[in-house]
Amino acid sequence: MDKVRMTLDECRALATEVLTQNGCDGANAAAIAAIITAAERDRAHSHGLFRLPGYVTSLRNGKANGRAAPRAERIAPTVVRLDGDGGFTPLSHQVGRAPLIAAARETGMAALAIRRTIHFAALWPETEALAEEGLVAFAFTTSPPYLAPAGGKRRFFGTNPMSFAWPRGGSGCGRPPMVFDQASAAMARGEVMMAARDGRTLPEGAGIDAAGNPTTDPNAVLAGAQLPFGGYKGSAIALMVELLAGQLIGEVSSAEAGDADNRDGTAALGGELILALDPARFGAEDPIGHAERLFARMLAEEGVRLPGDRRFRARLETPQAGIEVPRSLFETIEGLRTG
Amino acid sequence: MDKVRMTLDECRALATEVLTQNGCDGANAAAIAAIITAAERDRAHSHGLFRLPGYVTSLRNGKANGRAAPRAERIAPTVVRLDGDGGFTPLSHQVGRAPLIAAARETGMAALAIRRTIHFAALWPETEALAEEGLVAFAFTTSPPYLAPAGGKRRFFGTNPMSFAWPRGGSGCGRPPMVFDQASAAMARGEVMMAARDGRTLPEGAGIDAAGNPTTDPNAVLAGAQLPFGGYKGSAIALMVELLAGQLIGEVSSAEAGDADNRDGTAALGGELILALDPARFGAEDPIGHAERLFARMLAEEGVRLPGDRRFRARLETPQAGIEVPRSLFETIEGLRTG
Repeated sequence: MDKVRMTLDECRALATEVLTQNGCDGANAAAIAAIITAAERDRAHSHGLFRLPGYVTSLRNGKANGRAAPRAERIAPTVVRLDGDGGFTPLSHQVGRAPLIAAARETGMAALAIRRTIHFAALWPETEALAEEGLVAFAFTTSPPYLAPAGGKRRFFGTNPMSFAWPRGGSGCGRPPMVFDQASAAMARGEVMMAARDGRTLPEGAGIDAAGNPTTDPNAVLAGAQLPFGGYKGSAIALMVELLAGQLIGEVSSAEAGDADNRDGTAALGGELILALDPARFGAEDPIGHAERLFARMLAEEGVRLPGDRRFRARLETPQAGIEVPRSLFETIEGLRTG
Repeated sequence: MDKVRMTLDECRALATEVLTQNGCDGANAAAIAAIITAAERDRAHSHGLFRLPGYVTSLRNGKANGRAAPRAERIAPTVVRLDGDGGFTPLSHQVGRAPLIAAARETGMAALAIRRTIHFAALWPETEALAEEGLVAFAFTTSPPYLAPAGGKRRFFGTNPMSFAWPRGGSGCGRPPMVFDQASAAMARGEVMMAARDGRTLPEGAGIDAAGNPTTDPNAVLAGAQLPFGGYKGSAIALMVELLAGQLIGEVSSAEAGDADNRDGTAALGGELILALDPARFGAEDPIGHAERLFARMLAEEGVRLPGDRRFRARLETPQAGIEVPRSLFETIEGLRTG
């Protein structure tokens, strides 16, 4: 495939300019561009520049508020509620992070309940940022309904990712946190979309077609429903994510989000729940050092890796090597400029 | 198979007597017998009387303290630490429940960090009990190492179950909470043990033999390693459970528990983390009613069920119908009497 090479700075500048030209104010453009660039830095392409046309679509059609001014309010000792003002999540995370960290350090554990936001990115950036501050973090969010529950054939759940991050000594130690971010679907939606774009078939079990029959054709799955990972267990996790990012915080479920959505292909307006636990408050003597011994023992067996390992290895290379973007995507993005 | 019929009261009395005759004081015997009886009531046989010989083994060999006096202490606004005093978990749960609920109601969210305990039961009883009080609950615990991480062939993780419960109106409304309790392993250890006892083969993907080769022979898996559910995603959840029930609260990981364990076939001395969230404090107007609408819409599709559904249907029948116990198991239990 023909590729365009660019540096991470060029990626960030491109994303910032295109977002600004399409209705984002400076704060929102910078926050979204940072998330896109972090994904490209980690070679997590399905959340990188590949998403930029989608962001622009929802800015242009008015679903997303490009000038959102998120506001945080502490409504309980452990709960910070954040109104995302109809914008994309990255600026909400920036605004909510400090009060969440303060509440978690003060009480031992706290939640950031984000409402009225559009989560069109990966979840690992927000949990990783908390783990860089020494906190254990969870994140949960819904999506438009793409996933059939175990036993069902109709879309009902979102792909409903959850992320978990564990600190490994804080920023500057050269060792990024242990982070996983995984859809409750067998495959992330973005991976299915990229397979469709690239003409690849899906592994068995990724989804069913519109008639409810198993298929490995990504276009048939996009028209039908994805399936949960691990059968009924992944389906139970999808349901848990619904309740945490929806009902618990007063936001819509995936099915309700889908009812209200303009179906422009990006995420729907909805909620996200982030939990932060301060390991210094749970009574352990050296939880971080103890975890390092666990990781070392685990990795002593060949073939075993920590979650996030591939992203972190990419991160060591891309600042020098730069990134590669399919020329067709690059041209699509250039075509979104209005200036 | 030849069966012995008994009522739930007879089950409870049998368990209480055998435990008392084998070193439990009244409080520990009653708490363990209640958990065993709840499992039989729900036809969750692998956690019912099937476990009683194991409890007795660890009481007789001194691994378990049958006279444990668990003590709870609030060490942070959101953290109740509980010393299990080397006993089985059921009494720890009874002792820790009230301070955990009080902390969660006061702050919005709280944790019960249980150390020095032996968790040889299911996790759903503790999360269900919290959901009966109107709280959203999580539980996580480790086990001796039985599970190979994704990419590995050696036992490293425990079966590492997690449980989640969501309240459905509180006790007395006739509608039990939504509860799931699932091992990070493709199958629960108890299910593999029962398949070995009954001469059944396992589904593909349940485990590998001691040489690391896939097998459906339960005895080969018991000698080898179980595999995570859903591949690397279940493996990531197993790692999360390790860190939460181990490092975070100052307890051992599964591998360390295995090092120290006497390998008598029951659980090892270790930790459990329980989280409780008060849905009244997260800013939602009617989270419980809203969840009912989610469940109703989900269950409108034929073939879709809520987690825990099979247990709850059994629960409607066994108080009248009684339970059936394999005669061989009943005779084994009768043989444990010392009086």
